[in-house]
Amino acid sequence: MVSRSVRLAVIPGDGIGPEVVAEGLKVLDAVSPSSGLAFERTSYDLGAARWHRTGETLPDSVLDELREQEVILLGAVGDPSVPSGTLERGLLLRARFALDHYVNLRPVKLFPGVATPLAGVTAEDVDMVVVREGTEGPYTGVGGVLRKGTPHEVATQESVNTAYGVERVVRYAFEVAAARPRQRLTLVHKDNVLTFAGELYQRVLKQVAREYPQVTTDYLHVDAATMFFVSQPRRFDVIVTDNLFGDIITDLGAAIAGGIGLAASGNVNPARTAPSMFEPVHGSAPDIAGQGKADPTATILSVAMLLDHIGAGDAARRVEQAVSDDLAERAALGERPTAQIGDAIAKRVSG
Amino acid sequence: MVSRSVRLAVIPGDGIGPEVVAEGLKVLDAVSPSSGLAFERTSYDLGAARWHRTGETLPDSVLDELREQEVILLGAVGDPSVPSGTLERGLLLRARFALDHYVNLRPVKLFPGVATPLAGVTAEDVDMVVVREGTEGPYTGVGGVLRKGTPHEVATQESVNTAYGVERVVRYAFEVAAARPRQRLTLVHKDNVLTFAGELYQRVLKQVAREYPQVTTDYLHVDAATMFFVSQPRRFDVIVTDNLFGDIITDLGAAIAGGIGLAASGNVNPARTAPSMFEPVHGSAPDIAGQGKADPTATILSVAMLLDHIGAGDAARRVEQAVSDDLAERAALGERPTAQIGDAIAKRVSG
Ligand SMILES: CC(C)[C@H](C(=O)O)[C@@H](O)C(=O)O
Ligand SMILES: CC(C)[C@H](C(=O)O)[C@@H](O)C(=O)O
Repeated sequence: MVSRSVRLAVIPGDGIGPEVVAEGLKVLDAVSPSSGLAFERTSYDLGAARWHRTGETLPDSVLDELREQEVILLGAVGDPSVPSGTLERGLLLRARFALDHYVNLRPVKLFPGVATPLAGVTAEDVDMVVVREGTEGPYTGVGGVLRKGTPHEVATQESVNTAYGVERVVRYAFEVAAARPRQRLTLVHKDNVLTFAGELYQRVLKQVAREYPQVTTDYLHVDAATMFFVSQPRRFDVIVTDNLFGDIITDLGAAIAGGIGLAASGNVNPARTAPSMFEPVHGSAPDIAGQGKADPTATILSVAMLLDHIGAGDAARRVEQAVSDDLAERAALGERPTAQIGDAIAKRVSG
Repeated sequence: MVSRSVRLAVIPGDGIGPEVVAEGLKVLDAVSPSSGLAFERTSYDLGAARWHRTGETLPDSVLDELREQEVILLGAVGDPSVPSGTLERGLLLRARFALDHYVNLRPVKLFPGVATPLAGVTAEDVDMVVVREGTEGPYTGVGGVLRKGTPHEVATQESVNTAYGVERVVRYAFEVAAARPRQRLTLVHKDNVLTFAGELYQRVLKQVAREYPQVTTDYLHVDAATMFFVSQPRRFDVIVTDNLFGDIITDLGAAIAGGIGLAASGNVNPARTAPSMFEPVHGSAPDIAGQGKADPTATILSVAMLLDHIGAGDAARRVEQAVSDDLAERAALGERPTAQIGDAIAKRVSG
């Protein structure tokens, strides 16, 4: 079989990052041959250690190298020894913004057999996709401090939203919704308070909706949406929302779909002007690093999203199915250490 | 018994507002005589109807009258016939800002017998108080639109945070925490992204903490906090957070504590330079208005908070106990229409 060669950048990062990435790559290696894929990997030592050593988070030279890759797999970044926000903004958000990851794609799906904190809720009740805007909103870093440290200090943060940015993510969300059986799209915002940004989202939603008459749309304030996540998760199919609301509701989504150990995500540049980056939603969890306790499932599901992105849908489906089967087995037979989960899933997809 | 006279403004509002307020007042009337309280009530017809009639939401003249009152009881405002945000900003937020309600106090408490969507969670697992900032953050209305309606439109929203505003709400939260058995205070923010505002909150928390050595403090990002709300609600005692995060997590809190029909709140001006305003967290729910389906419990619990605020702690405890007993009875014997719930609770507190 002729192999298609894919340039893959790997950023294992901090804490449990390297452990879960190792399992993700194990599964990728197992599924690749029979899918006609060959990955040309380059690993980047970005994260806390490099910052301590050099003060660098994501140097321009590395960013330039990343641009030459086709896709990126990221583990997790962050460490208590580094001031909060340094790696998050200097590395993670810098990559999202520089590589124009305007869609932050986060499925919220409860696999059969997986425990959820919600009473009486089963796999068929939780199956949604959150399309989170990834390059604007309150994440721009715009803002500042006046009279710092005095009783008259003022600290501001600005949410910047553009027609350009909102339209492209809303359009993407309609595409996702149109391709799903229920064809339902919910805008989540807070337009009764954040009136300027909210009205822009509402107006764009209405405009783009004309091109997708088959998709039913509705709107929820973000506060109400969090209630429905726990009281009626079934009401959601596809959600489109801003960067900060998306951050919040996808963590809540992870919680109801069996925990952060299972939540995958893609930082997607649908225009393909730069590589997209796939990463588990969880952080670096330094408290459990190196103990074989981390669940690599979120990373493995992120690998499935990566495969989808490069057009290897069949391989993606096989990885998802293997994860689903493995989760059912773990529900029945008990949890396993990190590497054993990777082994089991790799075995299922190989050959 | 000599009566203390209290000037009470009542704003029934829209939808189910008038129905639930009627029950709140029924309970207030029932508990007052034996508590040595007499309320001098003035009702204000603010809301959708008045806006349709006159275009007014909260006219200056009414605001001036409200300032002369000691406390305010509000039902709910908002109607689909009024553009989203008009009454919310023109009436509710205007009152909160003008009357300097810098503490938005929202207990999240699961009463015994009440159903929660969380599996295996009982009343003792959910008992926290959210101290939400009420007069700044992303709620200032600061922001604007450039090139509206063009492909180059930019919409901004600014979160404004001051040392003055943050310190007073953080201090209040420490007071609340110090008075509770667990004496634990969690700051909820997003300081790895909203660095200017987040750092201000963190710094103020650390400073004020020195005055309350008995209170244990910690910090959670808002996204992680929503996960813990559903996976481990017990970890929370008192939370202090900004206006928008507080809005979101208290709706989620209401959901886990038995639903929005039970969630009470106080818009409090602790300096007492203007009247405080008590209101159920829920909205006007026009879809069920006038059918006797609304649960007045949130309003009745808001009346208990109002009683606490005016120094009638005994009366407040009696109302809370009556609500608790009534909820247990409803759990056992089934739900009742709006007025019957008010009747039953009024009966329990009277005499
Ligand atoms: C680490 C942090 C900056 C990041 C975010 O807020 O986007 C994370 O919470 C996420 O959801 O990927
Ligand atoms: C109606 C709305 C403006 C309000 C808010 O966002 O504060 C409501 O959601 C609340 O929580 O009281």
